[in-house]
Amino acid sequence: MTYTAVLDHGYVKLIEQWGSDERIIESARMSTGRGFEGWEKDAKLLAFLYSHKHLTPFEMCGMTIEVKAPLFVFREWHRHRTQSYNEMSARYIPMPDENYMPDVDRIEFLGRQAGNKQSDADKLSIESCANFRLDLRALYTKAQQIYEDALAAGVPKELARLVVPVGRYSRMRASANLRNWLAFLTLRMDPAAQWEIQQYAAGVGKIIEHLFPRTWGLFTGDKND
Amino acid sequence: MTYTAVLDHGYVKLIEQWGSDERIIESARMSTGRGFEGWEKDAKLLAFLYSHKHLTPFEMCGMTIEVKAPLFVFREWHRHRTQSYNEMSARYIPMPDENYMPDVDRIEFLGRQAGNKQSDADKLSIESCANFRLDLRALYTKAQQIYEDALAAGVPKELARLVVPVGRYSRMRASANLRNWLAFLTLRMDPAAQWEIQQYAAGVGKIIEHLFPRTWGLFTGDKND
Amino acid sequence: MTYTAVLDHGYVKLIEQWGSDERIIESARMSTGRGFEGWEKDAKLLAFLYSHKHLTPFEMCGMTIEVKAPLFVFREWHRHRTQSYNEMSARYIPMPDENYMPDVDRIEFLGRQAGNKQSDADKLSIESCANFRLDLRALYTKAQQIYEDALAAGVPKELARLVVPVGRYSRMRASANLRNWLAFLTLRMDPAAQWEIQQYAAGVGKIIEHLFPRTWGLFTGDKND
Amino acid sequence: MTYTAVLDHGYVKLIEQWGSDERIIESARMSTGRGFEGWEKDAKLLAFLYSHKHLTPFEMCGMTIEVKAPLFVFREWHRHRTQSYNEMSARYIPMPDENYMPDVDRIEFLGRQAGNKQSDADKLSIESCANFRLDLRALYTKAQQIYEDALAAGVPKELARLVVPVGRYSRMRASANLRNWLAFLTLRMDPAAQWEIQQYAAGVGKIIEHLFPRTWGLFTGDKND
Repeated sequence: MTYTAVLDHGYVKLIEQWGSDERIIESARMSTGRGFEGWEKDAKLLAFLYSHKHLTPFEMCGMTIEVKAPLFVFREWHRHRTQSYNEMSARYIPMPDENYMPDVDRIEFLGRQAGNKQSDADKLSIESCANFRLDLRALYTKAQQIYEDALAAGVPKELARLVVPVGRYSRMRASANLRNWLAFLTLRMDPAAQWEIQQYAAGVGKIIEHLFPRTWGLFTGDKND
Repeated sequence: MTYTAVLDHGYVKLIEQWGSDERIIESARMSTGRGFEGWEKDAKLLAFLYSHKHLTPFEMCGMTIEVKAPLFVFREWHRHRTQSYNEMSARYIPMPDENYMPDVDRIEFLGRQAGNKQSDADKLSIESCANFRLDLRALYTKAQQIYEDALAAGVPKELARLVVPVGRYSRMRASANLRNWLAFLTLRMDPAAQWEIQQYAAGVGKIIEHLFPRTWGLFTGDKND
Repeated sequence: MTYTAVLDHGYVKLIEQWGSDERIIESARMSTGRGFEGWEKDAKLLAFLYSHKHLTPFEMCGMTIEVKAPLFVFREWHRHRTQSYNEMSARYIPMPDENYMPDVDRIEFLGRQAGNKQSDADKLSIESCANFRLDLRALYTKAQQIYEDALAAGVPKELARLVVPVGRYSRMRASANLRNWLAFLTLRMDPAAQWEIQQYAAGVGKIIEHLFPRTWGLFTGDKND
Repeated sequence: MTYTAVLDHGYVKLIEQWGSDERIIESARMSTGRGFEGWEKDAKLLAFLYSHKHLTPFEMCGMTIEVKAPLFVFREWHRHRTQSYNEMSARYIPMPDENYMPDVDRIEFLGRQAGNKQSDADKLSIESCANFRLDLRALYTKAQQIYEDALAAGVPKELARLVVPVGRYSRMRASANLRNWLAFLTLRMDPAAQWEIQQYAAGVGKIIEHLFPRTWGLFTGDKND
């Protein structure tokens, strides 16, 4: 799985990888002068490295992915300072008119969760959810109309974009080593993370599972303890 | 100058500093075993360190500031991965209804600049600028109305915020060492940077000038070459 | 405790701090718009931040220290890539003739530990320990003699130093934010770390306990779980 | 050229790469939504990115290398905090008896350079150089003898190593993205860097020239200005 569709218009896609589970062993063996010796023997070493937090060998692998996600997801994502980013720039090209519309289920579900501090749960009705979706759609339409009018009138792109809501989609490449991807997932697969970025984290996880299956096993095993 | 008002509702404000121009000398002298010996002698050493890019001593100073700025400015700011950030979270509190409204002069000026790739300069008229401001204000009002209605109806804050335009103000603390603050200013005081973040960079520069006057002199002298 | 003597000639010494336990709360409150409200209320928030790994507010504090330690300790220390360093340079000044001499107890103790992979425990006798100390002293003396002769003859410092053993002391300043100091201590106070760097970590810990007592309490409580 | 012998026993060797000159263009084009369009057109874009310091696209490439070098070279190398390292550990295996012996030419040449602050140039004679080499060899032999005796007696490896001089060879893997490799080379190919690490930097440069020829052209063109 090197491509996963996420939310209504987004995706996570592998561009390039480097390293492998074997490479991790090989790099760790720098400390003792030997190389990879087969998984029968070295599965135990990989588990030891991971559980004892000898994590530098996991920096010898990595991957670059492409991501399409709403701005509010990128706002959270970019707080991870160990990744490299190249994002579409609204200073140079008009942002496409694609916007995130959450399902009623999604709005309802979170609203209703016990102990949810993000909403006033008692009040939230199906009607309110439907109304919010209508309002949101109307706002997206209005913003796009103003955006297009401004660009047509010659307003600089970097100012015309002021109207763009944080539900609007953008696109980027992100690159990091495996250790840092796992640190990203630890925070963003967590149930306390916003549901939307959790979906992206799950997509990133599928790529890691495909490329580094043994490391992934240790990572998820750890989470399941 | 440890406080500067920026744009229509923003500011840059010093919270705390550490180190000094003297500390830089003292730290650099680790390599030879001596300490600070007075500026008559050591002004030359500071200049040498700076011009020969021996920049680790400049990492022994730093500062924490508070910033209020529109989201699109924060989006650019957060790409600097050597600073530490704590920002207001729209997942936990409703964002205040403060939005950036550029002056006609600002819209006009950039639109008209020769070689400006951000606009279709020929078309841009004073009327278009005024119209854009009216549209922008209407959009801000509409977005806020939907936002408040959604919150009142119990829609989770983290979803209600989807309508918030990137012109909306937020607030954060940012902390970095002096070397990294100068790297930030090098990119963000540059004429190629968006005008709005240039204004914030100027505010940061005033604080650095106040706290580290000799380093500031070298930094600006370098830019003026 | 802002100064701790470590090993036979070394030390850890506070140069400067910034931030405080209160500052951590204040920075975390950026997300909700309030400030520090007294420890009766906020002790709980600090504990929550720490235990849920909301660690960016801990980046708003930090400290710069001075350290004198043997080269083999600095070799391990410098693998921490989030600290800033300024070290004495043997390219510019002759290294002072100070060398680390481990006690017999230290040599014996580690040698005898069950499961110690660093020695061939069965063979190690008190006599062997004493002999090693004599040999080590002789080697230090010989190395220093050659070093001085080479420097006197005009051999460049950067080459004369080739004879310097990794038991030789050097000196540096190190600066980092509190989050990164705690990450350093997590690895270097660990029983699997070399005993010598554990002693330095303990000295760093005493300074943190003095400056950030509540954070220190959470850090050590966590280790004791 | 993916392997270069360096000094008397060292080397620099490519383990793995990712990205390419084309990938840099492709990543930079995220900002405008297009991909790589052929070097006839895009050579100019690559040059623009490089000369205007739009360096994040250069973070989408990178390489892992293996290096064998003396400890004093690794001491300088590890100050680069943007690389990932896995090094042989003298806590776990005895360090092989390989030591760096500088040529008379090397000792003489640097000693004689006008303005050399690393030596007392007037005094340095060919005889002194020869004597230093004899002394150095004797010290290496003596250190190795003590090291072996200590290990044989059961002294823990981590303490037996105290006698090891910084001229002793070690081995590591180092991994970084292309932007950070170029930053490393900028400092370590500089004539002010120690001659020995300059040789390693030259080896690293040859690998980059082989893998990323267009970026290398811009890098060296820049240095030649």
